[in-house]
Amino acid sequence: MSHLETSINYVWLLMAGFMVFFMQAGFALVETGFTRAKNALHTMMMNLVVYAVGVLGFYTVGFAFMFGGVGGFASLNGGTMLNGLVEVAKGWGIIGTKGFFLTTGGTYTTAVYAMFMFQVVFMDAAATIPTGAMAERWRFKPFIIFGFFMSMFLYPLYGNWIWGGGWLASLGKTLHFGHGAIDFAGSGVVHAVGGLTALAGALVLGPRLGKFNKDGTPNAIPGHHLPMAILGTFILAFGWFGFNSGSTLAGTDLRIAVVAVNTMISSIAGAFGAMIVMWWKFGKPDGSMTANGLLAGLVAITAPCAFVESWAALIIGAVAGVLVVASVLFVERVLKVDDPVGAVSVHGACGLWGLLALGIFADGTYGIGFNGVGATAAKGVTGILFGDPGQLIAQLISMAVVIVWAFGVSYVFFKVLDKIVPMRVAPEVELQGLDMPEIGALAYPEFSLTGSGDVDVSNGH
Amino acid sequence: MSHLETSINYVWLLMAGFMVFFMQAGFALVETGFTRAKNALHTMMMNLVVYAVGVLGFYTVGFAFMFGGVGGFASLNGGTMLNGLVEVAKGWGIIGTKGFFLTTGGTYTTAVYAMFMFQVVFMDAAATIPTGAMAERWRFKPFIIFGFFMSMFLYPLYGNWIWGGGWLASLGKTLHFGHGAIDFAGSGVVHAVGGLTALAGALVLGPRLGKFNKDGTPNAIPGHHLPMAILGTFILAFGWFGFNSGSTLAGTDLRIAVVAVNTMISSIAGAFGAMIVMWWKFGKPDGSMTANGLLAGLVAITAPCAFVESWAALIIGAVAGVLVVASVLFVERVLKVDDPVGAVSVHGACGLWGLLALGIFADGTYGIGFNGVGATAAKGVTGILFGDPGQLIAQLISMAVVIVWAFGVSYVFFKVLDKIVPMRVAPEVELQGLDMPEIGALAYPEFSLTGSGDVDVSNGH
Amino acid sequence: MSHLETSINYVWLLMAGFMVFFMQAGFALVETGFTRAKNALHTMMMNLVVYAVGVLGFYTVGFAFMFGGVGGFASLNGGTMLNGLVEVAKGWGIIGTKGFFLTTGGTYTTAVYAMFMFQVVFMDAAATIPTGAMAERWRFKPFIIFGFFMSMFLYPLYGNWIWGGGWLASLGKTLHFGHGAIDFAGSGVVHAVGGLTALAGALVLGPRLGKFNKDGTPNAIPGHHLPMAILGTFILAFGWFGFNSGSTLAGTDLRIAVVAVNTMISSIAGAFGAMIVMWWKFGKPDGSMTANGLLAGLVAITAPCAFVESWAALIIGAVAGVLVVASVLFVERVLKVDDPVGAVSVHGACGLWGLLALGIFADGTYGIGFNGVGATAAKGVTGILFGDPGQLIAQLISMAVVIVWAFGVSYVFFKVLDKIVPMRVAPEVELQGLDMPEIGALAYPEFSLTGSGDVDVSNGH
Repeated sequence: MSHLETSINYVWLLMAGFMVFFMQAGFALVETGFTRAKNALHTMMMNLVVYAVGVLGFYTVGFAFMFGGVGGFASLNGGTMLNGLVEVAKGWGIIGTKGFFLTTGGTYTTAVYAMFMFQVVFMDAAATIPTGAMAERWRFKPFIIFGFFMSMFLYPLYGNWIWGGGWLASLGKTLHFGHGAIDFAGSGVVHAVGGLTALAGALVLGPRLGKFNKDGTPNAIPGHHLPMAILGTFILAFGWFGFNSGSTLAGTDLRIAVVAVNTMISSIAGAFGAMIVMWWKFGKPDGSMTANGLLAGLVAITAPCAFVESWAALIIGAVAGVLVVASVLFVERVLKVDDPVGAVSVHGACGLWGLLALGIFADGTYGIGFNGVGATAAKGVTGILFGDPGQLIAQLISMAVVIVWAFGVSYVFFKVLDKIVPMRVAPEVELQGLDMPEIGALAYPEFSLTGSGDVDVSNGH
Repeated sequence: MSHLETSINYVWLLMAGFMVFFMQAGFALVETGFTRAKNALHTMMMNLVVYAVGVLGFYTVGFAFMFGGVGGFASLNGGTMLNGLVEVAKGWGIIGTKGFFLTTGGTYTTAVYAMFMFQVVFMDAAATIPTGAMAERWRFKPFIIFGFFMSMFLYPLYGNWIWGGGWLASLGKTLHFGHGAIDFAGSGVVHAVGGLTALAGALVLGPRLGKFNKDGTPNAIPGHHLPMAILGTFILAFGWFGFNSGSTLAGTDLRIAVVAVNTMISSIAGAFGAMIVMWWKFGKPDGSMTANGLLAGLVAITAPCAFVESWAALIIGAVAGVLVVASVLFVERVLKVDDPVGAVSVHGACGLWGLLALGIFADGTYGIGFNGVGATAAKGVTGILFGDPGQLIAQLISMAVVIVWAFGVSYVFFKVLDKIVPMRVAPEVELQGLDMPEIGALAYPEFSLTGSGDVDVSNGH
Repeated sequence: MSHLETSINYVWLLMAGFMVFFMQAGFALVETGFTRAKNALHTMMMNLVVYAVGVLGFYTVGFAFMFGGVGGFASLNGGTMLNGLVEVAKGWGIIGTKGFFLTTGGTYTTAVYAMFMFQVVFMDAAATIPTGAMAERWRFKPFIIFGFFMSMFLYPLYGNWIWGGGWLASLGKTLHFGHGAIDFAGSGVVHAVGGLTALAGALVLGPRLGKFNKDGTPNAIPGHHLPMAILGTFILAFGWFGFNSGSTLAGTDLRIAVVAVNTMISSIAGAFGAMIVMWWKFGKPDGSMTANGLLAGLVAITAPCAFVESWAALIIGAVAGVLVVASVLFVERVLKVDDPVGAVSVHGACGLWGLLALGIFADGTYGIGFNGVGATAAKGVTGILFGDPGQLIAQLISMAVVIVWAFGVSYVFFKVLDKIVPMRVAPEVELQGLDMPEIGALAYPEFSLTGSGDVDVSNGH
């Protein structure tokens, strides 16, 4: 690879990484806008501090666990690093062991730094998703402990299995299931992990006071600042172009244009899907759900974005838009779980749908040689619709694994943590709002509030 | 063109396109900040949904109408696509016919996707401009219908005539008027189209309740959140660097640096122009008008940004800053049209000024071969100040056409639409605010409002 | 240098410059969020107008003073411009004299435009820093005059000495102090200049009414919108990646990856440092100080970001996070200076620390040939920890000079200005809020305020 080609790839990867970083602001605004004024500083602060915690955890340990497998750093260190991840599948690996504190001893350290820069912001997207589902009642100290757990252990291990050359990525080589589990930009690695962890956390924390009546029927608790949430949605959609297109790891891979357009098409299909369902079922287009539909479309296309044509992106997004509405209702009315911002549905349900969609719609025009499969074959990653049932099997396995891993392990973690460091604030703190007791200041000391964010707990539990 | 050169151009074009997409957030904030709290969710939501509607309309139909002319896709599909638009002028064409749903059958489909990615966000800028002028009283359903009309028909046709090789672009070849009509980044194609459509829409909708007294004198209705509007202005100014510099379609065209600086210089001249006029006439610098002056400078430089030196950018922007103030007063006091955010003046009036300014100040140092003119000549696009009256004539024709097309056709469209799907909300909905009746939620359910956004209708109509 | 290499560098430099421009929005939000509702439009407006004023001043005069030295424009005009600044050190120069209005007469004018685009946004970052420390009491007219003074004179001269080949940059050549004074991306040139000017301005203006009691003890005046301030912090952190990484002036310099990661690591270390200190000292993590800690880490790493490894970035940031807390307490309790947003501490104190840190931690792996030193030597810029005390001496000299220059000269300027155009609003304007009297509108005409932003002046002065 020439120096100019490498330069183009660095420029692309870093710019895309900067955009993904900016998504932290989007998450902060969406989560804060969809929750109540009395907790606004606490919610913003979780989104700010999860960045600090996550970077520290990933820098010290997580990055090495995820990408430091045998061959992993060899590939990173080699001149072909920036699209060399295609060659790292290496059997039944489950954890990397090199690259703690970014020390590699190799000669191509700028490549390691570039790779870290891009990957760390992906990790932080996953780490920040649970703060939405667990907002308005989570104590700050256990939240910080969770941040280290997520960035050092929970995220990197599943990440290793898919992106670090681990056993799921190697299912093509070892068991001949398509190209092994494929997740182009992280419907599973980032979003399903984040969303399923959010579900476990919201379960362990329990619902906000006043959310459910004694008979189990839910009460709506409106977000306090919908323009803020919609601004956050725009910022997320902006950063997502970097998230998905940047995941080629190479500006010289012209597929970036296809990825960008598919990302856009799926997002607007998701917005339409959710808006139309809401309009038809409840009589109004519903601003919150339209925004969540757009995000749902983005989450779903994230795995398959490079492997499908635009018509498939339209379908994938539309399904995601309907799915997110169904999932929100299911989580609230059937599971009786209180997820203030819909994070479980947007990231969890639609993340799983993205993994599945790849196994259906991938058309074989891209991904030759991915995960070390078929470098000499004529076909890239191919879904069942185009003739490869093996790829679908690999995807289904990766879905089962992420459910067990992200939901199961994090559930146990939260349960144990709750024994040691109680997870939930006292009821009087929750009624007052977490800003002053937990963070020491108010978000809006000068604006008069109507009290409509107060809940009636006489009928609740 | 080498693969590396192509890669640089893709990276540039996509990054610039992402920035232009982000302008949707800027439009949303400016429009919402300049209007009232009781309509804030409705205004945000229009800006969100116009993106979904516009992308769908442009993807299915509009892009093909605009760029799918004979030669158009040949050029797109050829290796020279990314700065190949210079060669597409082909006579008296008025509409493209290839590329519906991005299907081209060609071999260079990534180029088509890249081009779509950049062009669709331009279309959506035009489509979102009328939502500002028509805010606080427009029903959501006719707004959606308008979004399809704009993205599928109104925008693409004029766009085809200027950027798709149509008859206005060909005036240089056919009638020897300079290089034919030139609009580098869309003062006309995007902003004048948006602003003139906004004027037609605001006329058909009529003024907000309480805006004008019975004697025709206007009342000020202050925006509810000026920091939001100024944040939106910053976001627009940020995205505009992508808008203008990206319009080389090539990162290898080093003129990008000149375009960026001219964009900046004109914007600050516009801010100064408006601020000084307001300070001098009304005694205060006026935050809203200074922000609109900055935007006016951006709109005006958008057509000529590549063809002039920085001193000319300073003049063009300063004139735009004065013009926008004059136009706002003219629209409100003479035309008696209610444009809550000044969209008609910022985008319409200053968009026309931008087209004209190119015909005056273009200095001939850039644009050799544009629209198939003078590929062997020594001179690029040249305004009358530098000796080519023909270019000015081409610009004047393109201005006349955009007035007739964007204002005239959209006026008829809105009139007809109003008969079929009434455009305006009921008076009681308007007094209450559109958020709950039209969208089903409040923007700010917890903040106490003073009632100063209520209007006195006893003296109004 | 090949055309492709030049193209990559332009793309990188311009994109980075656009990101730095966007930091203006970040400054606006941080400063406005940390101050009171009654002054929100005034604070936003200062941040908007300082951009217009600064660009005009730098375009007409400042850029020439800073970069128009003998050799400066030769280097800019030559093909090696985009990383050619390494060659411009030329002795005891103190001011440039070419390039007013960007007119150069040279043949490579796009390079001059590209360089201007990147440098002007750095200048505006420095110019906007004092608006935070001087918020809520500064009249608009003297503020505008200051903007011209800063952009035309104060910033460009010190800038010339460090980045324009002036006498501080030449200390390596002339006196054999390391590579001469080095400041990779502006801890000193931008942040210390801004922060020290802010200190002088806040001293001359005096504290806000009610800030200090008669006995000299301070009162807390909480910011009115902390989510806005934290959003601003995210935007600043996003733009900072362009600020630091872009300062290679070349996308083909793969050190950009190291710079980006160091920037991130230092920022999160700063956030941790400040948060832990606050938690330990005052019992709560404190949202405002955590955000300021993150910014402090960014400021401190800005000078050394290209010359150190990630472990050093962690230390530099953590020290900055502790330092910013100490400095805020020192400024308020010992100096009795009222700095509403902490600008003096974040930018002034941590900017100086950044200059010093470079002299300590630079490891010699980068910067061979910088400032014309050691082009044939094996070592790059090297701090005392790695064996070069000369570099530390150069840094200490540059720190002494920036204190004398930025604090001293601006103090005299503000004192003189105050005689001619009184700097401070009348007490009744300050109590009412500056929005209506100074700008002619209210930031939030519809939101009810609690009056908690009013101060008790019975015990004040």
